[in-house]
Amino acid sequence: MSFPERLARDAALVAARLEAELAPRAEQPVIHAMRYALRGGKGLRGFLVLESARLHNVAPERALAAAASVEALHAYSLVHDDLPAMDDDDLRRGQPTVHVKWDEATAILAGDALQTLAFELLTDPALGPAEVRIALVARLAKASGAEGMVLGQALDIAAESAGRALTLDEITALQAGKTGALIRYAAEAGAVLAGADPAPLGEYARALGLAFQIHDDLLDVEGDPDATGKRTGKDAGRGKATFVSLLGLDGARARAQALIREAEAALAPWGERALPLIEAARFTITRQA
Amino acid sequence: MSFPERLARDAALVAARLEAELAPRAEQPVIHAMRYALRGGKGLRGFLVLESARLHNVAPERALAAAASVEALHAYSLVHDDLPAMDDDDLRRGQPTVHVKWDEATAILAGDALQTLAFELLTDPALGPAEVRIALVARLAKASGAEGMVLGQALDIAAESAGRALTLDEITALQAGKTGALIRYAAEAGAVLAGADPAPLGEYARALGLAFQIHDDLLDVEGDPDATGKRTGKDAGRGKATFVSLLGLDGARARAQALIREAEAALAPWGERALPLIEAARFTITRQA
Repeated sequence: MSFPERLARDAALVAARLEAELAPRAEQPVIHAMRYALRGGKGLRGFLVLESARLHNVAPERALAAAASVEALHAYSLVHDDLPAMDDDDLRRGQPTVHVKWDEATAILAGDALQTLAFELLTDPALGPAEVRIALVARLAKASGAEGMVLGQALDIAAESAGRALTLDEITALQAGKTGALIRYAAEAGAVLAGADPAPLGEYARALGLAFQIHDDLLDVEGDPDATGKRTGKDAGRGKATFVSLLGLDGARARAQALIREAEAALAPWGERALPLIEAARFTITRQA
Repeated sequence: MSFPERLARDAALVAARLEAELAPRAEQPVIHAMRYALRGGKGLRGFLVLESARLHNVAPERALAAAASVEALHAYSLVHDDLPAMDDDDLRRGQPTVHVKWDEATAILAGDALQTLAFELLTDPALGPAEVRIALVARLAKASGAEGMVLGQALDIAAESAGRALTLDEITALQAGKTGALIRYAAEAGAVLAGADPAPLGEYARALGLAFQIHDDLLDVEGDPDATGKRTGKDAGRGKATFVSLLGLDGARARAQALIREAEAALAPWGERALPLIEAARFTITRQA
């Protein structure tokens, strides 16, 4: 199975699990907005959960609620990041953002409810013993809260309002929180489900997460809005320091490639069983969207 | 110990537990805003956790993280409800709301991080076996998400934009979600911590939660803004149906008193050991703020 086929298959499993949560709920705009926000993503974080689980001999059915959980958490972060008071984006995954399609109140509530749903999914008994489930709750909270994603977003806003460009170290720290922490959580989840050491997957995901963000910065400069499904040229327009503005196009590409080699090295102990995860790493720096 | 003394003592315990979470975190506006949002409340929900725990012979030290958790969840809901796109309130607990004191982006992020913190606190091993902690996570998610608090808030917004006044049944359903679900979760938490049947506490809290909301509607009409710490007369100004507009002042007062008798009856099996919780119920319909 090719990597795109594998990614699509895993994304379909996760989408079905999420729909099973939403289907019985009240017919309210906030539920429709949650479903809309969950649609159209690549599903990379859910894929990382399912594939790191498979690597540790945990069946996808057992890991599915955790994969759905991380996609719900990611969707919440996008809905809130897109709000006018935050990044003020009107386009996401080629479609109007939630506050454009509905309104700001619905977007705030849908994001709030998606975060709640992410934690609720981690209580699914299919995930295994209560010890495993509560460990996932603790890890997801660390990755997403004021020590992880929210901290990264807050540093990003502080940098913009401070009116000075960040250094390479500062951008690396910011991204480790803003996008890196959740990617790392997702990759480590399979090891946690198996009761195994999550360190190798953590090292893989640290490198992958940073490469992912460098490639995002490259797409913002070189990408085609029709392919990315969002506005490009935003960072330069805002005079924002990025990996590209600091390293140059060639330097940023070289750095991303070096990181992918680091990600591959972290998975060497698994040999070719790790191929789906290695292909995912290579994909992050070749994707057009 | 009088009820106000008991409430203040429990609130101080909870505030110290919350500060222990926030103190080690980065010196960012979002952290300051979280601390600010946690300050100045009565602490009724945390009190309900600690007192329902005591009723079930669970020591306050064991229940403390759950009490801090529900106060963090409540604070998140207030910060987001006060946003311009939601209720657009500039005053809360006698102080400027978070988006007025900082800005909307910080208020959105601080609310998001407070929700995360609420779930993180429930992973505290002091709460007991993993089974108990994951049960609390599942219950908090149900109470706060799109089947509880968020659903209530969404119904409230829908009612306002529909331009028609709600019926008594609709308002009762709306409030059961918007404020009732979290109060009920808090009162049941002590039984969950003890592995006991939460049904009597649930019945107590259902009645108390509804009485609480009826009294809120009464305060909006009769209250003194200096005492309540928020604007009054808002509901009438918006032509919003409330328990007072539907039942009249006397009818609303009588209904609240009948509910408090129901709350007392639910705790009859505990005799005078339930006195702190009964005094809390009586307090909800005599408070000035």
